[in-house]
Amino acid sequence: MQHSVALLARTPAALDALLRDLPEAWTNANEGPDTWSSWDVVGHLIHCERTDWMPRARILLQFGETRTFEPFDRWGHASACQGKSLGQLLDEFSRLRAENLAALRALNLRGEDLALRGRHPDFGIVTLSQLLATWAAHDLTHLHQVSRVLAHQYREAVGPWSAYLGVMRCAAH
Amino acid sequence: MQHSVALLARTPAALDALLRDLPEAWTNANEGPDTWSSWDVVGHLIHCERTDWMPRARILLQFGETRTFEPFDRWGHASACQGKSLGQLLDEFSRLRAENLAALRALNLRGEDLALRGRHPDFGIVTLSQLLATWAAHDLTHLHQVSRVLAHQYREAVGPWSAYLGVMRCAAH
Repeated sequence: MQHSVALLARTPAALDALLRDLPEAWTNANEGPDTWSSWDVVGHLIHCERTDWMPRARILLQFGETRTFEPFDRWGHASACQGKSLGQLLDEFSRLRAENLAALRALNLRGEDLALRGRHPDFGIVTLSQLLATWAAHDLTHLHQVSRVLAHQYREAVGPWSAYLGVMRCAAH
Repeated sequence: MQHSVALLARTPAALDALLRDLPEAWTNANEGPDTWSSWDVVGHLIHCERTDWMPRARILLQFGETRTFEPFDRWGHASACQGKSLGQLLDEFSRLRAENLAALRALNLRGEDLALRGRHPDFGIVTLSQLLATWAAHDLTHLHQVSRVLAHQYREAVGPWSAYLGVMRCAAH
């Protein structure tokens, strides 16, 4: 769990360093209809901080397998973040992440707590350990997505070099 | 070109925020035999700063199509970076990138210069514009790789959630 927390604590600063004040031609661009821009990704990460990870951990700890997690709204960030600048979203993500990691530490989880079980709306039984590992891996999947979405804007510009750039061949959408 | 420079200027800080002092269980791990860890990726980026982007731009500007770029050694970082900590590599990457961007600015390139042509050992004719765009997209392909390599360590830990994590399905190696 300490490895997950080490990563979770770093993601806001990493996205901030990459995206803040980058030209909007980069940050507002996506991969086509119904795909996300970097702005959407940061909005989505905020929405997850509010409605997914720690809320689900609390349901699991309080109700175990008897109460299913609330389903997550994949487009929930669109209305919640409307009108906000990317800079505002980066600030909000950083603040919420710090609050959630403080709340996680305050739970004083012991090793055996990580095996506690809850119920996911699609997967059924999951453990607290899996939930917390997914929180960290989910940061990575969206960092992976942001780098791919940014690179997408350069598909033509790089000419023949696209053959050597793995990110241009990534189909992990 | 200003868009490329905006991204190129941010990558060292983004990798620093993500990787510095992250446990070595994350940063030394790779995806299996003959694959790269985060340490290798930062070493490779350093090797590119030394032997690829600006050296090739100078060959192109001086010799045009008449002189082929030096071939790039994909494992060249291994000996050059041997024994260095990830923190040292991050410092070195940041310094070399800043120096190279200063050198690029000092060239005072005009719009028409971007169409100038050089010769790549595999692709043949390429333009300065393509070379500079590739410098930026190459940062993104390795940020994409680092997030995938880190996520690879969590394939088992996330349990059934791996189905929802695109990074776990990425085959853009």
